Amino acid sequence: MVDENTIFIGKKPLMSYVLAALRQINADEGTLVIKARGKAISRAVDVAEILRHQYVKTANVDDIEISTERLTSDEGRESNVSSIEIFMSIGEAEKGGPTESMDDA
Amino acid sequence: MVDENTIFIGKKPLMSYVLAALRQINADEGTLVIKARGKAISRAVDVAEILRHQYVKTANVDDIEISTERLTSDEGRESNVSSIEIFMSIGEAEKGGPTESMDDA
Repeated sequence: MVDENTIFIGKKPLMSYVLAALRQINADEGTLVIKARGKAISRAVDVAEILRHQYVKTANVDDIEISTERLTSDEGRESNVSSIEIFMSIGEAEKGGPTESMDDA
Repeated sequence: MVDENTIFIGKKPLMSYVLAALRQINADEGTLVIKARGKAISRAVDVAEILRHQYVKTANVDDIEISTERLTSDEGRESNVSSIEIFMSIGEAEKGGPTESMDDA
């Protein structure tokens, strides 16, 4: 269910994820979840930031969740890895105004 | 003002940040901001997750903000870098219950 609007960030070039995110947030629902684990987390933030600042000015970050996933390696060793989910949606132009005052930070 | 309770994530060993975060969230105010830029963003999430799952079970993630900072290199070249701020606070044991249902995700 969630997966339909979810982009998983891996090791492809950054802009391929930005393009995929752009397609998704411009689809009917206008929602997008950017998900990443481990070192890809910083790339997930890059994708969200590039998307909303350079391509879809009306895109908002609605929520960000972090969690820990327990992975089992092929050798059966378990390890914890952090993950992030960035929930975005496209805003209506009429609403105007950013939801966060980034420039004041 | 904000800086007093802020931990900036850099290139030191991860656990040194976890310890600093632990000291800060156990201080009088009981608040903590974990901040990072660029590739250190994933480490910031690691610090928050290790802190709340392994050291301070009553620690909550209250809010997460992402933004873009414009940096100028020594040669005068400008570039954008993503940043994250993770706002945490220590919860009261009486309140009980996690604010997020991580295990259901």
